[in-house]
Amino acid sequence: MFTHETQLRVRYGETDQMGYVYYGDYAEYFEVGRVEALRSLGFPYKRIEEEGVMLPVHEMHVKYHRPARYDDLLLLRTSIREVPSVRIVFMYELFNESGTLLAEAQVTLVFVDRATMRPCRAPAPLSEALSVHFSR
Amino acid sequence: MFTHETQLRVRYGETDQMGYVYYGDYAEYFEVGRVEALRSLGFPYKRIEEEGVMLPVHEMHVKYHRPARYDDLLLLRTSIREVPSVRIVFMYELFNESGTLLAEAQVTLVFVDRATMRPCRAPAPLSEALSVHFSR
Amino acid sequence: MFTHETQLRVRYGETDQMGYVYYGDYAEYFEVGRVEALRSLGFPYKRIEEEGVMLPVHEMHVKYHRPARYDDLLLLRTSIREVPSVRIVFMYELFNESGTLLAEAQVTLVFVDRATMRPCRAPAPLSEALSVHFSR
Amino acid sequence: MFTHETQLRVRYGETDQMGYVYYGDYAEYFEVGRVEALRSLGFPYKRIEEEGVMLPVHEMHVKYHRPARYDDLLLLRTSIREVPSVRIVFMYELFNESGTLLAEAQVTLVFVDRATMRPCRAPAPLSEALSVHFSR
Repeated sequence: MFTHETQLRVRYGETDQMGYVYYGDYAEYFEVGRVEALRSLGFPYKRIEEEGVMLPVHEMHVKYHRPARYDDLLLLRTSIREVPSVRIVFMYELFNESGTLLAEAQVTLVFVDRATMRPCRAPAPLSEALSVHFSR
Repeated sequence: MFTHETQLRVRYGETDQMGYVYYGDYAEYFEVGRVEALRSLGFPYKRIEEEGVMLPVHEMHVKYHRPARYDDLLLLRTSIREVPSVRIVFMYELFNESGTLLAEAQVTLVFVDRATMRPCRAPAPLSEALSVHFSR
Repeated sequence: MFTHETQLRVRYGETDQMGYVYYGDYAEYFEVGRVEALRSLGFPYKRIEEEGVMLPVHEMHVKYHRPARYDDLLLLRTSIREVPSVRIVFMYELFNESGTLLAEAQVTLVFVDRATMRPCRAPAPLSEALSVHFSR
Repeated sequence: MFTHETQLRVRYGETDQMGYVYYGDYAEYFEVGRVEALRSLGFPYKRIEEEGVMLPVHEMHVKYHRPARYDDLLLLRTSIREVPSVRIVFMYELFNESGTLLAEAQVTLVFVDRATMRPCRAPAPLSEALSVHFSR
C-alpha cells in the first residue's frame, strides 16, 4: 500500500450558508490529494497528460461524517492499495486539526489514450514507481 | 416513487482542460435537481431551513459514464424512492440532448434540528407531500 | 446598444457562510449572461471556439451593491455598447426579484486566433449580427 | 505599506477547456492572499467574524495579463497601502514561477457590524497591527 498525506486550508468560498464546506468542494480536495501523492512518487499528474494520457474520473463515493469548516487546516490521507491497471483507485481519509475523521472517500479514474480515446494501461514509469510499494 | 426532471445548461467555468465538466461540479447539478424536485412538491428547500431544519449531505455516490461538455443542455432526472424518515435519498440520472446517459448518482441527506444540532425527522408537510406519491 | 436579459437561480453551493453569494461566483453569472446574449444573436459562444477563435477575459470590474442570497431568482441584464473589434465589452446589471440592483460589472474579452495565439478581429458573422443594433 | 506573499498551486478543477485558470477562480486566490496576509499580522480573518464583524466584498477590479495554467505554482503578493477605516483595500499581483506577472487586482471590502448590519470601523487590534507598517 502506498500512502501520502497533504494539508489543505479551507477557503471561505468553499463554505456554504450552513457554515460547512459545501459537499461538492471535497472533490477538489481529493484531486489535490492524488496530485500530490503522484508528485511524491516522482510522476506529476501533468506529466501523465504530457504523455498523451488522460485520467477522467469514473466513480466517486464519499461519506461525510462531520463538517469541515472555514479556515480548518485539514489533513488528507491518500492511499493506493493496488497497482493500477487500466484504472487507478484512490482511498481518502480527511481529518481536521483535532484528528477527527471528517470524511472518507474512494475515487476511481481510468487511463485513456488521448489519440484513440480508448482505455489504456497506466504509463509504465508510474506503475514502476508504485510497484516498489507493493512488492513483498 | 416520485420523479422530477429539470434542465441544466453546462457553463464554461464548469469545464476543465480535458474539455469535460469537472467531476466535482456534478454535485451542484444534483443539488439543483433536488431543490427543483422539492419546489415542485410545494416545499422549497429554503422553507426547510426557515423551519429550523438543516439538511447536510451524508453520502454521495456518482458513476460517470460519459463526459458532459460545454454548452450541453442536460436533462437531470431526480427520483425519491422511499418516504423520508431522518434521512432522504435522491437518485439521479443525467442525460445529454441525444439521450445518452452521462452519469448516475445517489445522494443521501440527513435532517438536523438546528437548535439541538441533532438528527430529526423530515418536516411533516414534506412527508405528507411525498406520501401521495407512495400510496397504493 | 444591444441588450439581453437572462434569469439565474442562486444555487446553494454559491452561498458562503455569511449567507451571501460568494463574490467570485458572480463571474459565472456574467459568463452565462454573455453566452445567452450571443446565443440570442444567433452566434453561440461555442461556435466562436469551433471557428478557431478563443475569447479569454482581459479585465473584470465588479461593484457589489447588495448581497444575492440563496434561491434568489436573479435577472441579469447584459449590454454591448460598441461593435466589437479585437475586443468585446459586456456591461452587466444584476437585479433580484424585487428589482433591487445587486451588482454592476464590466467584463472585457479579447479575440485570440488559436492557431497563432495572437489577437484577432471578431468573427465577421458576429460583428454583422451586432451591427444591426448599432446602425442609425 | 504592508506586503505579504503567499504561494498557491493551481488545481485541475480551476482550469477551463481553454487550458487556462477560469477567470472567476482568481477571486478565491485573492481571498487566500488577504486571509494569509491578515494571519501574518496576528489577526486571522476568522477572528474578525468571531468579533461580530462581517467583511463582504464591495468592489473587485482584475486585469488578466497572461493565463495561469494547471499545476502552476503561483506567487501572490498582497498589499495594503492605507490604514483601513470602514473599508479595507487589498492590492494584488500574481506571478508564475518564471516571475511573469499574470494578473493584477484591487479588492475593496467593507466592515459590517453583524448585530446592526451597518458599516462599522475596522476592529481596533487590526488597525493597530497594521498601523505599525504605516508609521514614519
